[in-house]
Amino acid sequence: MSGERSMKNSDGSIKLRNPNVENQEQDILYHLALGSGSHNLVEMFGDVRFVCMGGTPKRMEGFAHYIMKQIDYKLPSGTQLYDISRMSYRYSMYKVGPVLCLSHGMGIPSVGILLHEVIKLMYHAKCKDPVFFRLGTCGGIGIEGGNLAISESAVDGMMNPYLELPILGKMKRRPATLDKELCDELKDLGKQDDPFTIDIGKTMCTYDFYEGQGRLDGAFCDYEEEEKINFLKKIRQDGVINMEMESLCFAALCNEAGIRSAVICVTLLNRLNGDQVSTPKETLNKWQEYPQMLVARYIRKELGLQNPPQDHPQVVKDLRKLGIVRQESASFE
Amino acid sequence: MSGERSMKNSDGSIKLRNPNVENQEQDILYHLALGSGSHNLVEMFGDVRFVCMGGTPKRMEGFAHYIMKQIDYKLPSGTQLYDISRMSYRYSMYKVGPVLCLSHGMGIPSVGILLHEVIKLMYHAKCKDPVFFRLGTCGGIGIEGGNLAISESAVDGMMNPYLELPILGKMKRRPATLDKELCDELKDLGKQDDPFTIDIGKTMCTYDFYEGQGRLDGAFCDYEEEEKINFLKKIRQDGVINMEMESLCFAALCNEAGIRSAVICVTLLNRLNGDQVSTPKETLNKWQEYPQMLVARYIRKELGLQNPPQDHPQVVKDLRKLGIVRQESASFE
Repeated sequence: MSGERSMKNSDGSIKLRNPNVENQEQDILYHLALGSGSHNLVEMFGDVRFVCMGGTPKRMEGFAHYIMKQIDYKLPSGTQLYDISRMSYRYSMYKVGPVLCLSHGMGIPSVGILLHEVIKLMYHAKCKDPVFFRLGTCGGIGIEGGNLAISESAVDGMMNPYLELPILGKMKRRPATLDKELCDELKDLGKQDDPFTIDIGKTMCTYDFYEGQGRLDGAFCDYEEEEKINFLKKIRQDGVINMEMESLCFAALCNEAGIRSAVICVTLLNRLNGDQVSTPKETLNKWQEYPQMLVARYIRKELGLQNPPQDHPQVVKDLRKLGIVRQESASFE
Repeated sequence: MSGERSMKNSDGSIKLRNPNVENQEQDILYHLALGSGSHNLVEMFGDVRFVCMGGTPKRMEGFAHYIMKQIDYKLPSGTQLYDISRMSYRYSMYKVGPVLCLSHGMGIPSVGILLHEVIKLMYHAKCKDPVFFRLGTCGGIGIEGGNLAISESAVDGMMNPYLELPILGKMKRRPATLDKELCDELKDLGKQDDPFTIDIGKTMCTYDFYEGQGRLDGAFCDYEEEEKINFLKKIRQDGVINMEMESLCFAALCNEAGIRSAVICVTLLNRLNGDQVSTPKETLNKWQEYPQMLVARYIRKELGLQNPPQDHPQVVKDLRKLGIVRQESASFE
């Protein structure tokens, strides 16, 4: 990854590519509802090693509970997870030991604001070698619904492998490169009896869900089914295996900051067969757990966890006796 | 507005610029958790005349309650507003009689998905001449915090007055024009004793909050304070009075659909003086009501409401007696 070596201190903590931040009296992470003056960020976040992002608050809250079980992380009795950024009304943030779980909303601008602030958070908190994951949903190109696509790199809607952004009136380009080694490591964590396949390829990242992804069912459409299919087949030939709306920015900003990162998405449908997602909600919910399963395996491996995760609640010894306690307890008004 | 005449039927309902939608068995408005086959959209939304959008669910829920009072809309006894799109976990939607209140998240892709689906919703519901408003927050360019900026048009970070989007590999441009007449009508609703000024001008809409808006406090920054100020002064000379992240897409898609629309933002700071928003939360919350006040005046005028809105709860006759009822009621365990 270009520039990785120069962007880190010898202990693995991040050097910020902005000299202004350390000279500020306080750095307000406005959209996270945190500040470097108001919060002890080293104390709160210094142990974070894995930053996992996904679209909706609900999905990432679910992931927080899932990863808690997977890494056998015990909350102190009488405590529960809460959304650290709830006062921003923009993103959700849950922390489970070394794992930070964040919702990034939809699209490049939304994930971009979050990345700027989370990269600064890693810097303030002196986190060591954090790895960033996007756990997303996508449309597959030639891959049926319910399978995994890992991005080797991201391209925009014109097949350009970089993020373009006007800065002070000049266009800046940043390569949307991802960590090849991490891709392979993740793919190797697939098991023969998994209900999903895993492909590695290019991801097309668009600024729009309807026309931007060649759908026929938006508010506007001035092309035909045949043109759409020809376009999708052509980009598939050029190595694109899926489409979503955040990877370009995620890859470009992580790369710029020298952070190892990966994008793992589950396909909701094969776009060569249609546009609308008509799979039942329960199936979709199940599919959305697949990227979580793979990332959990990676985190477990990195943490050196050998035993299979506990599947039962951590504090209950006897379910039958718990039932009696609840029943008796409820009858005392 | 270009194309307005041809985009509507004689009764003011919307002609959709996509022939595919009427041939679909069911049109799923995926991110709104609604469908043309599953819901009676005419029954549910046919009376909508004003569509109001803003960033966060919380702000738009607040607006729903505010506009309810302003237009003297009475809910049936024993009912309350609820979020129609809550099952999508993406946008919030509240309906108060003829007013639809929606959160659009942050950035062009997020507001774009919403607009595609809300325009289709207007079409399915056969709404007559709906007017769309974005009620937002922004950075002022030469305008102090706590004042209103109405967009006469939107430009991107290169000062281009159009939205660019790759569609099937070809770049499409759509003019980001807004309704001049509606701008003036809104400005005329300002009162001498309002706590805010109202300016009309160009709005620069960016794909990033930090570098994209020339801030010095992002995760990356390779320019100096002086270059930033020179850039901001230059765009101010070219007519830009504020910066935000949605207007370009909002203007372009409403214009494409032939829908009258306006963008009214309150400035959170004057960017010529700084980057970080350090105004107290209570003041910011008060400021965020200013665009709501102006739009409420417009809606009241359009509905022909003369009497000032009622300021007390609609069902309580006597506050002192209510206190006694509550106290007595609480003492019966």
